[in-house]
Amino acid sequence: MDRTLVEQIVRQVALEYLGRNGKGPAPQLAVMASARHMHVCREDMDVLFGKGSELTVYKDLYQAGNFAANEKVTIVGPRGRVISGLRILGPMRKQSQVELAFTDAIMLGFDDIPVRLSGDLKGSPGGIVMGPKGAITLKEGIIRAAIHVHMNPAEAAYFGVKQGDKMKLRVGGGAGATFNEVHVRIDPASRLNVHMDTDEANACGLHLTKDIELFK
Amino acid sequence: MDRTLVEQIVRQVALEYLGRNGKGPAPQLAVMASARHMHVCREDMDVLFGKGSELTVYKDLYQAGNFAANEKVTIVGPRGRVISGLRILGPMRKQSQVELAFTDAIMLGFDDIPVRLSGDLKGSPGGIVMGPKGAITLKEGIIRAAIHVHMNPAEAAYFGVKQGDKMKLRVGGGAGATFNEVHVRIDPASRLNVHMDTDEANACGLHLTKDIELFK
Repeated sequence: MDRTLVEQIVRQVALEYLGRNGKGPAPQLAVMASARHMHVCREDMDVLFGKGSELTVYKDLYQAGNFAANEKVTIVGPRGRVISGLRILGPMRKQSQVELAFTDAIMLGFDDIPVRLSGDLKGSPGGIVMGPKGAITLKEGIIRAAIHVHMNPAEAAYFGVKQGDKMKLRVGGGAGATFNEVHVRIDPASRLNVHMDTDEANACGLHLTKDIELFK
Repeated sequence: MDRTLVEQIVRQVALEYLGRNGKGPAPQLAVMASARHMHVCREDMDVLFGKGSELTVYKDLYQAGNFAANEKVTIVGPRGRVISGLRILGPMRKQSQVELAFTDAIMLGFDDIPVRLSGDLKGSPGGIVMGPKGAITLKEGIIRAAIHVHMNPAEAAYFGVKQGDKMKLRVGGGAGATFNEVHVRIDPASRLNVHMDTDEANACGLHLTKDIELFK
């Protein structure tokens, strides 16, 4: 099913704010919908896929070094409902984490999951995750990822924003909407790139328009 | 599944714009998520549920005279995919119509469906609809309902809008978003009421906040 593709690129937009603010041409903006996925830590990888197993690359993602892995798991929610074929994104992280759209969370039997930045897992719900070699019980780590924009310091300077700021993303068209809580995440290795989830992409009709604007 | 409930009331918000614009207290605003559903015409009702059959009330909806019916159908999409338990909303209409969120449309095998106001069906895709007594082939009528606000003329006067105008609906909170294309539909029998679909409600976290504002 299309929706299960990880990091499906719904729309890549090249916005040229030529000369805007006298700062020269704007960096290219890519806006993508992230389908539900999981990040795993070394310890959980050992249980799920076998001691010393490694993630293998299915597809490189837009941010350098990140990839959709061939490895998939099955997750079981609080009422015994299941989502299978949940793809893992690499590389491995310090803590395992599952990112679902709210629609996915409902499907899995949750009444709610918190909207969080990646890595901010405290108090989030958990679940059972099953791999081919074993199962783990996540005590916490199931979140809905807050919409965010990756950028490098030069891009941050262009927009006049700093780490932790919020920006807005306006998507035009017949289902047009403005996301008012786009978290800014700055890293020298990043490329300018908004990540939204499939609920947000479906709501605003991201696939329908090239009229997209990121602003402070 | 919760998502299959028709006209699930995610949030009713009583906004009191006391004295705003010197126009006195604001009308109460109810914002609701409409789950996927169907409207049927007399002719299709005859085929689906039997000659002369009538819709029966499962639950009254917020707009007077409208109701979720006990009657449900199954719809088959272009690749043979199926959504069952699709609830009908009454009363009957002049033309049959299926309203899906974009997520539903993808589930049903569509790559896209148009965002339309109710009744504006020209060129929209069709499908096969099955009831207990027979099946119909809709040549067109499957749409994604554009977000809209029902109001009566006094409420329209309060906001200073007329039929066909568009307003904005800002939903606050951690997944906050502003819907920029809220169609105004004025009818003397209406109560002030925004209808969005489940994708939109899930995207903005409608269930998470009371910080909601409708404006021109």
